[in-house]
Amino acid sequence: MPKNMEILDKFFNPKGVAIIGASATEGKPGNVTLKNFIENKEKGILKAEIYPVNPKHKEILGLKCYKSVTDIPGSVDLAVVIVPAPFVPQVMEDCGKKGIKAAIIISAGFSEIGNVELENKVKEICERHGIRVIGPNGLGVFDAYTGVDTMFVPQYKEAEGKLMLATPRPDKGYITLISQSGAFGVAALDYMKGEGIGVSKFISYGNKMDVDEADLMEYLAKDPTTKAILIYVESIENGRRFMKAAKKVVKEKPIVVFKAGRTEAGSRAAASHTAALAGSDRVYDAAFKQCGVVRAETMEDFFDFGKALAMQPPAKGRNIAILTDGGGAGVMAADALEFLGLNVIQLSEETLEKFEQLKKNKILPPFAVYKNPIDLTGSADTRMYVESMKILMEDENVHGVVLIALHHPPLISFDLPEKIAEVIRNYDKPVVACDVGEAEMSKAFRKKFDSHDIPAYPSPERASRAMYALVKYGEYRRKVLEYE
Amino acid sequence: MPKNMEILDKFFNPKGVAIIGASATEGKPGNVTLKNFIENKEKGILKAEIYPVNPKHKEILGLKCYKSVTDIPGSVDLAVVIVPAPFVPQVMEDCGKKGIKAAIIISAGFSEIGNVELENKVKEICERHGIRVIGPNGLGVFDAYTGVDTMFVPQYKEAEGKLMLATPRPDKGYITLISQSGAFGVAALDYMKGEGIGVSKFISYGNKMDVDEADLMEYLAKDPTTKAILIYVESIENGRRFMKAAKKVVKEKPIVVFKAGRTEAGSRAAASHTAALAGSDRVYDAAFKQCGVVRAETMEDFFDFGKALAMQPPAKGRNIAILTDGGGAGVMAADALEFLGLNVIQLSEETLEKFEQLKKNKILPPFAVYKNPIDLTGSADTRMYVESMKILMEDENVHGVVLIALHHPPLISFDLPEKIAEVIRNYDKPVVACDVGEAEMSKAFRKKFDSHDIPAYPSPERASRAMYALVKYGEYRRKVLEYE
Repeated sequence: MPKNMEILDKFFNPKGVAIIGASATEGKPGNVTLKNFIENKEKGILKAEIYPVNPKHKEILGLKCYKSVTDIPGSVDLAVVIVPAPFVPQVMEDCGKKGIKAAIIISAGFSEIGNVELENKVKEICERHGIRVIGPNGLGVFDAYTGVDTMFVPQYKEAEGKLMLATPRPDKGYITLISQSGAFGVAALDYMKGEGIGVSKFISYGNKMDVDEADLMEYLAKDPTTKAILIYVESIENGRRFMKAAKKVVKEKPIVVFKAGRTEAGSRAAASHTAALAGSDRVYDAAFKQCGVVRAETMEDFFDFGKALAMQPPAKGRNIAILTDGGGAGVMAADALEFLGLNVIQLSEETLEKFEQLKKNKILPPFAVYKNPIDLTGSADTRMYVESMKILMEDENVHGVVLIALHHPPLISFDLPEKIAEVIRNYDKPVVACDVGEAEMSKAFRKKFDSHDIPAYPSPERASRAMYALVKYGEYRRKVLEYE
Repeated sequence: MPKNMEILDKFFNPKGVAIIGASATEGKPGNVTLKNFIENKEKGILKAEIYPVNPKHKEILGLKCYKSVTDIPGSVDLAVVIVPAPFVPQVMEDCGKKGIKAAIIISAGFSEIGNVELENKVKEICERHGIRVIGPNGLGVFDAYTGVDTMFVPQYKEAEGKLMLATPRPDKGYITLISQSGAFGVAALDYMKGEGIGVSKFISYGNKMDVDEADLMEYLAKDPTTKAILIYVESIENGRRFMKAAKKVVKEKPIVVFKAGRTEAGSRAAASHTAALAGSDRVYDAAFKQCGVVRAETMEDFFDFGKALAMQPPAKGRNIAILTDGGGAGVMAADALEFLGLNVIQLSEETLEKFEQLKKNKILPPFAVYKNPIDLTGSADTRMYVESMKILMEDENVHGVVLIALHHPPLISFDLPEKIAEVIRNYDKPVVACDVGEAEMSKAFRKKFDSHDIPAYPSPERASRAMYALVKYGEYRRKVLEYE
């Protein structure tokens, strides 16, 4: 691992962590964070030694507490800093003395409230000591695999006399989320937990004094548990660096960027939120295209795209087939795909002949429609789906399949997702699924598709948009590889 | 009630119902339907007498069974017909003799499979006897208030060794859904049940041999439990009649139409699905605008719009304010609103002065931003929301408010929805809400907003689109009233 990457790795795989500003007071950020680490260590997820630092205590939560990092006898490779802003410079000097090279500064009260001078001072100290910094004024890092969790927002909140899961940590998975906005980051984790979308890492870098998207993308390109990188930004300061890094990374894994502040009103709002000049949206748009980044236009797209790209291969072209048991839903998907510029192609004579053969063999009912969309109707059963899917996988002129499997028809069985997964396993062709409904079985059915790495969506349009992301990533990637 | 409306009323408020084709075999449509009626009668929802009709049985499910409707001693005002297609003509003759004026024909096997002649024969018989028909080849009627439920799809389905809720009936509410596609209708009810969107009536008219959208809209205009009418269609045969009816109805209540088959691929798909010529989409678009119907472009919009229109008044103009505790989410809403052509206005001097006063009085923190979006930041509490909302309600230049209340900040309390509801109660100005997340508290928070008739959405963009529907309906309604 190159030196620079080695240091970044400390943020996610530390051996010794100092919690500077650890607190004994329930609910305080320094208390919540320390607890996160202790709990993850007890669960066996975190392997690092934990060192609380606070001059006012000898012990916190059963751990020996140190006056300063310099007093810690063992080696420390990651500092989590949660002290009031004015104390941060001294703390960073101490970290430098201790030889720490990675620090997550959670503390707020810097450039975001106009305190530019203090931030510059901290920056100078860190540069002098060669310390890489995530923050300040962010939530820091959550790593589902290594147990690093600096998120100081308590998981539970009281409501109507009971504790409710308010700020959940998502399950282990293959998406890494980078967010410039802490609030949006928290909301995003909440969304992903509820939707069952697994996460590898979450990074909220706040004012991004040092470590930025480009650094993180380069690191994540080599991260085995990251299959798709999602970035929420309101501004990108060093566009050239971002593009250079993205171009390199998208050859290996997909990047989805959600950059809010696209309209005049939006960028006015973004400017007062982050004090960063949002820049012309068209420039951003062109730049993202050029470096192969898939852009999401809404929050929903952002996660939907991420889920598809983490689970399925990119498409080799724009020709899409729709396989459905609901005529209406098929029409909706056809509309959505065509609006997005994808082709709901007429199937080849050869393929049509194969479907006709299925009818002759009484596998498909006589009233099934095998134009594209292929409508198996309410009489659909699992075998019909399997046999139809085989035909579509074999057709080289079909580059992806939107599979609509409404669970309501009587013969649709709950093992459909695994049967489909068996068929598509041998092909390098993306499939996305859709079942409409929000009651028990519909949710369970979509979850089952997800568990077989077939991303499932609750509407034909959202499934179609997910396919669009797979097509776009395929196109961008081919272009980037071509110009090598 | 005019004669015509009186007959339509029998479909939803019958006094005597004949289930023609009632079956003793578990799971068969004639069995499921009969059970629905019996259960609803036992629950006290259904007031009508139930008469099973089947020449092969003397009793089904404990009820005396009749050879023919003509044998029923009591009066019957609604027939539910579930016999095989070839028997339908004779059954309708019998209904005519019995003096029945309303029939729901569930049976399939008519024009949808090319059996036009048989359908015409049934039509002739019904016209001769003055029987109004919903169907054939549809799911018929579900009424959450009166217990009419001809949906023959069983509610539960086996999966992994247990019964799962697969085709739920939604709760009582104020949306009535009309669907040309039965499959989409079932999926829609599933969605609404899970999302907690209440329903008044659901009508699936299949081949719409007789009763169509225009009839139903006119009837629903006077229905006290219908506050918004949602129509899913793939084709409208009599455009002029539709427009005339819609123009009249939208003065009293909103209509949302979701017409799939908008693109070439989509309308090709629709044509093979319903055997109906889809017609040019632009013509439809112009017609909907002219008669004041709000058009939904996706499934998600369809329900989101319906929920907003059933709960909130139309907006009096396009000027929208955003009130938020998350800067990023505020930016997303600003982008979405501006893309939709709404105005994220600069607030008036007077209003800005009022916000400044809140800061002076230490109700708002010094770092809150009261440009539009008004960003209360992560320090937001319930009082800040309440006081800010009062100011926005008083400002006549603000026509609607997108209220983003992420529940994660520590001081956001669970009674926020009711406190906001108290403030806005006295104003005729729409408010839509948003909280992002899919875990426990987020869902409960949105549900709480909904229960106070403030429609809540899981993303800033969806909340913004819901506001767009309220603006559009306001504009259309004013125009229709103007040209009276």
